[in-house]
Amino acid sequence: MGRCIIVSSSALKPSLFSRKTTSIRSIELPRFSFPSNLSANSKPLKYGVCRTLPSCTRALSTKSVLSEVPNQKQYSKIGAESTGPIPSAQLLGVIEKPPRLVIMDAVNKPRNITYKGLTDLVTECGEKNFPDHLILGEEGGLIGDSSSDYLWCIDPLDGTTNFAHCYPSFAVSIGVLYKGKPAAATVVEFVGGPKCWNTRTFTAAAGKGAFCNGDKIHASQTDKVERSLLVTGFGYEHVDAWATNIELFKEFTDVSRGVRRLGAAAVDMCHVALGIVEAYWEYRLKPWDMAAGVLIVEEAGGTVSCMDGGKFCVFDRSVLVSNGVLHSKLLERIGPATEKLKGKGIDFSLWYKPENYRTEL
Amino acid sequence: MGRCIIVSSSALKPSLFSRKTTSIRSIELPRFSFPSNLSANSKPLKYGVCRTLPSCTRALSTKSVLSEVPNQKQYSKIGAESTGPIPSAQLLGVIEKPPRLVIMDAVNKPRNITYKGLTDLVTECGEKNFPDHLILGEEGGLIGDSSSDYLWCIDPLDGTTNFAHCYPSFAVSIGVLYKGKPAAATVVEFVGGPKCWNTRTFTAAAGKGAFCNGDKIHASQTDKVERSLLVTGFGYEHVDAWATNIELFKEFTDVSRGVRRLGAAAVDMCHVALGIVEAYWEYRLKPWDMAAGVLIVEEAGGTVSCMDGGKFCVFDRSVLVSNGVLHSKLLERIGPATEKLKGKGIDFSLWYKPENYRTEL
Repeated sequence: MGRCIIVSSSALKPSLFSRKTTSIRSIELPRFSFPSNLSANSKPLKYGVCRTLPSCTRALSTKSVLSEVPNQKQYSKIGAESTGPIPSAQLLGVIEKPPRLVIMDAVNKPRNITYKGLTDLVTECGEKNFPDHLILGEEGGLIGDSSSDYLWCIDPLDGTTNFAHCYPSFAVSIGVLYKGKPAAATVVEFVGGPKCWNTRTFTAAAGKGAFCNGDKIHASQTDKVERSLLVTGFGYEHVDAWATNIELFKEFTDVSRGVRRLGAAAVDMCHVALGIVEAYWEYRLKPWDMAAGVLIVEEAGGTVSCMDGGKFCVFDRSVLVSNGVLHSKLLERIGPATEKLKGKGIDFSLWYKPENYRTEL
Repeated sequence: MGRCIIVSSSALKPSLFSRKTTSIRSIELPRFSFPSNLSANSKPLKYGVCRTLPSCTRALSTKSVLSEVPNQKQYSKIGAESTGPIPSAQLLGVIEKPPRLVIMDAVNKPRNITYKGLTDLVTECGEKNFPDHLILGEEGGLIGDSSSDYLWCIDPLDGTTNFAHCYPSFAVSIGVLYKGKPAAATVVEFVGGPKCWNTRTFTAAAGKGAFCNGDKIHASQTDKVERSLLVTGFGYEHVDAWATNIELFKEFTDVSRGVRRLGAAAVDMCHVALGIVEAYWEYRLKPWDMAAGVLIVEEAGGTVSCMDGGKFCVFDRSVLVSNGVLHSKLLERIGPATEKLKGKGIDFSLWYKPENYRTEL
């Protein structure tokens, strides 16, 4: 009776504390940032370095990246050279409006928000501000002037299943192409879930960097697959590409710190840009799933390609986005798996490009 | 030139809008609740019924559940009869303290939070308030009086990898057993991620219901696998059970609305209790991963069993928690897969029970 037993974990049977102890000792734990007003000059702690601020991590790891990945392959940029004749601030100003309206509407009249309502809101905003722009949306089809250089790719509700289950996250995603290439993007992520709903707004314009709630963001500088956290998605069509990706999920779950499956393409890409995961890939996506996210990743310093490693355009059917440093490493597995699908005759041609829409791809 | 094209989705090539349109039409979209002051009497909309408030969904679907699942198998309750000689309010009052301290500490000194710090905080709180209780923690080993009827199972940081990557969610999980059975539980989930950190506190006491931020919560009443959202986990040991679960992940991804992989066991279980996912399962868990979550699910009206369908105790090595309605349906696949592992000689005996700790299992 009384206080009598103090047993350290090593004195217990060998396997007792093996599950996570190994992992805890081998990974870097950050200082915890909540609600987060961290300064960048925080010092490493016993349990690891701070990677909350990507700029901090970047500074810490650049040297090892350069020495360990000397022959980093270069991938083509996928963003437009500029936003064309419309200044980036003007274009961003317009595309940031509908999500803001969505949020306001949700706050004031939560029961009035529907998928159809979201679609109309975004479409009307585009039509009102740029009546000559082409608009491609999942629900609305194609609207506007096919001679325009600007094509809006809108997903008023990215992560429909999550939305239906009140499961975080889902998003409103708007990407504007200029002559076929991503030029401006905004993704408003609804995070947290019941009792904790909140939003996080990602924006990017060609050559102007990527931002989250107004602050510049950077992809991570993690340079080892075994230290990476990854995320992927599985579409609704359970065909060959789907089965291949289950295999990739398994392989990467085995060799990385984990593969998350969250359920919203634009959100997953923004998380790569934010530096909280190192890479995301998925087969069978559509322009409105990708147009905004890919630009946000690239402007955050990440890399975008098709899953075979080839040059990506928004009309493609697959995407791999990463922090850049890991891109070639990930393609060592993802590339051959994709080539195998191509060998089986699976269609990887451009999925859809509005007829007569002029591009410089 | 000028406005000229308005094409409806059906006029585009057949496959063009097939990816998500099908799904959108076949699933129930809720009205959106943000920041959520919904009343329970909201009416179904064009795109579906409101399932934000579990009580609302429950009222809508009880009838069909009863008629469609007439021979619902009964599973043993896993919670204690009561919290024993310590009143539930007193026990809950104590175990809710350390997470609250964690939050306060994080707010005031975000850079001082470490895994070790979390462990000490929770352990000290237990020792100070109930010096005779046994405490089992991942880091601290076993501390206290083996003759106590109370065993604290603490995971000061559930979802370590997420924490390390600033990826939502992770949690502080504390479950207290009385004579071996879960009697009181609290899980504080850190949700949202960078720019949006927030917390959600789940509590439950034997026979007293489950709560989130003080409001009573209920598991969902979804009664069809094809309309369910599921979540699972993969441990750090990539052995037979791990491979089996990749297969289950594949099978359920195929037949449900999706299987999420979030990375924190206690959090996933609380999400079942909250009604935003229908079920969670995982092989190779430890008492501190499960002790709190299983009680919260059961007290929210859900069901808990081992993955072979057998009666669950916290010292077991696998768990399936569900909204109850779907439990037998899910076991039709999960059960045989688990039996197969047992047939191969994989150990499913009790993982660990502190020596001399008296239980009424």
